[in-house]
Amino acid sequence: MSSINDVAKLAHVSKSTVSLVINRSGYVSEETRKKVEDAIEKLNYTPNRLAQGLSKKNSGQIAVVVPDVSHPYFSALVKSIEQQLARKEYMTIICSAKENEETERWYVEMLNRKIVDGIITAGHTIDMSAYKSSIGAIVSVDRYINEMIPIVMADHRQAAEMAAEMLIKAQCRRVAHFVGSSDIEVQSHSFNEKIDEILHSKGVETVPFAIGYNSFNEDEYINSAKNLFDSGETFDGVVGVDSSILACYREATARGISVPSELKLVSYDGTFITRLHTPVISSVIQPIGEIGKCAADLIVSQLAHKKLKKMKYVLPVSTQKGETC
Amino acid sequence: MSSINDVAKLAHVSKSTVSLVINRSGYVSEETRKKVEDAIEKLNYTPNRLAQGLSKKNSGQIAVVVPDVSHPYFSALVKSIEQQLARKEYMTIICSAKENEETERWYVEMLNRKIVDGIITAGHTIDMSAYKSSIGAIVSVDRYINEMIPIVMADHRQAAEMAAEMLIKAQCRRVAHFVGSSDIEVQSHSFNEKIDEILHSKGVETVPFAIGYNSFNEDEYINSAKNLFDSGETFDGVVGVDSSILACYREATARGISVPSELKLVSYDGTFITRLHTPVISSVIQPIGEIGKCAADLIVSQLAHKKLKKMKYVLPVSTQKGETC
Repeated sequence: MSSINDVAKLAHVSKSTVSLVINRSGYVSEETRKKVEDAIEKLNYTPNRLAQGLSKKNSGQIAVVVPDVSHPYFSALVKSIEQQLARKEYMTIICSAKENEETERWYVEMLNRKIVDGIITAGHTIDMSAYKSSIGAIVSVDRYINEMIPIVMADHRQAAEMAAEMLIKAQCRRVAHFVGSSDIEVQSHSFNEKIDEILHSKGVETVPFAIGYNSFNEDEYINSAKNLFDSGETFDGVVGVDSSILACYREATARGISVPSELKLVSYDGTFITRLHTPVISSVIQPIGEIGKCAADLIVSQLAHKKLKKMKYVLPVSTQKGETC
Repeated sequence: MSSINDVAKLAHVSKSTVSLVINRSGYVSEETRKKVEDAIEKLNYTPNRLAQGLSKKNSGQIAVVVPDVSHPYFSALVKSIEQQLARKEYMTIICSAKENEETERWYVEMLNRKIVDGIITAGHTIDMSAYKSSIGAIVSVDRYINEMIPIVMADHRQAAEMAAEMLIKAQCRRVAHFVGSSDIEVQSHSFNEKIDEILHSKGVETVPFAIGYNSFNEDEYINSAKNLFDSGETFDGVVGVDSSILACYREATARGISVPSELKLVSYDGTFITRLHTPVISSVIQPIGEIGKCAADLIVSQLAHKKLKKMKYVLPVSTQKGETC
């Protein structure tokens, strides 16, 4: 295993020059940089990240906080973040915070102590005060924390317009609408507000139907759908997150209700489960890959002390025609 | 923010005693340990992991290597590992190795340099030599590396028996069988061998149908299913991984083939996507949560220099009756 000494020797430079190149700090001529990089490649030298962390006071590690990494939206988000961070030579520490709200706070503590260099949070923990008082690099996905912390999100209002258009075109008169807990201030609530507004303006009634806080388990989705159909409400359309809509398809089928002729279904997120389903679910698709990439780029920019162009990044959504609306 | 000094003061012990308790190294009486732990709790003290890492020569971090963290099997595995490691106060670094085979080798290098304390690998990278020459703590999920590295896996032979029984009971005569690449020596190949053996012994023919190496994308599954139905082969049953079977259901429906009356479908893995599907897919279920927990416990045991009871952990599978067979 080669050491920094071997690299210095092969490149005919000092150890500290090698260190400058690795840490991208201080001035090194292009020629010298090239010599060092060639030597690093030739020797297959991997810098000791921990030692590096000590001298640079950084760890090369970013924590990603999600409610549940096994949920299709969050697993796709983590994948995208991880791949982009790896390109920038950062490791990704994963934290599923749903089961334990203390976990998220603990990671903020890790950030304050520089055990991790930054946090990308897509967590749904109710209390955000820990982030507000933190001094480290933070990027939020889909949740406004304060004006100092950049936020990345899908264009939920555009998504609402697209979903409303699908339901209106299909001549729905009364649409049931799964809504998450309003206790947590995620930006995706604006989807709910906007779609109600548009549907009402076109004379379409809406039936809001609450699903529990941090419900990410298939049984909970299936129960929510059962409860909706048992509620006595009438509706000819349903809109909600992917898993809720898959569960509604199940429930409609079990009750002999034909989709889409008697009931229109539109899902939002549009993860792979809507495409592996038969029929393909008519959906509005979040650009999860782009959201992850943008969040990763923003945290790396912050760590490089680059000034961010803006603090709010709203990415466009798209539609998946599908066969349920 | 409280320091180790505050803890020492409150517990009326020296700083080095607090350190012994935190690092679980050296002898500390039960009474003293209790006093220190009470003080830690009272002060809500979080040990500085990096500083700890320096004195203990460990980082408190475990890397988990999977081909693709957005795949339902691997995202559930990562979730289970992460939750168990968090209970043991380890952080989980995630690495999706599918896109870049060098990544997995890089993590082994991180292990050799003690940047990470251990690796749990469920990777599908072809070359395993890096692991074989590594000296760090490694646990393998579903892939035999060598006799020094513990392996955790589902009982694939039991799974084959259960799946075969489903297909035989449903009176299948000729079963198409999606098989992964034999280039990578994962233990789940024993499922393929065993199910063929059982079906043949009962006079049921099998049609092996290859899916690509590291195919984890829904389009690839859908194309594989199309190719199977276009192949001209006749079959009255299909067995394969969850996503393949969902894609076969799609293809059968599109061609007017009725499931289960004309075609029986059985999937293996039995992740949540088989339960959110209508009809529910008849499946054999891998105990993913238990596999992850076992792998996490084994790596922590290795790091504590405990002697492992055995090197191979084979966990029982179960069936999900479903409506497709």
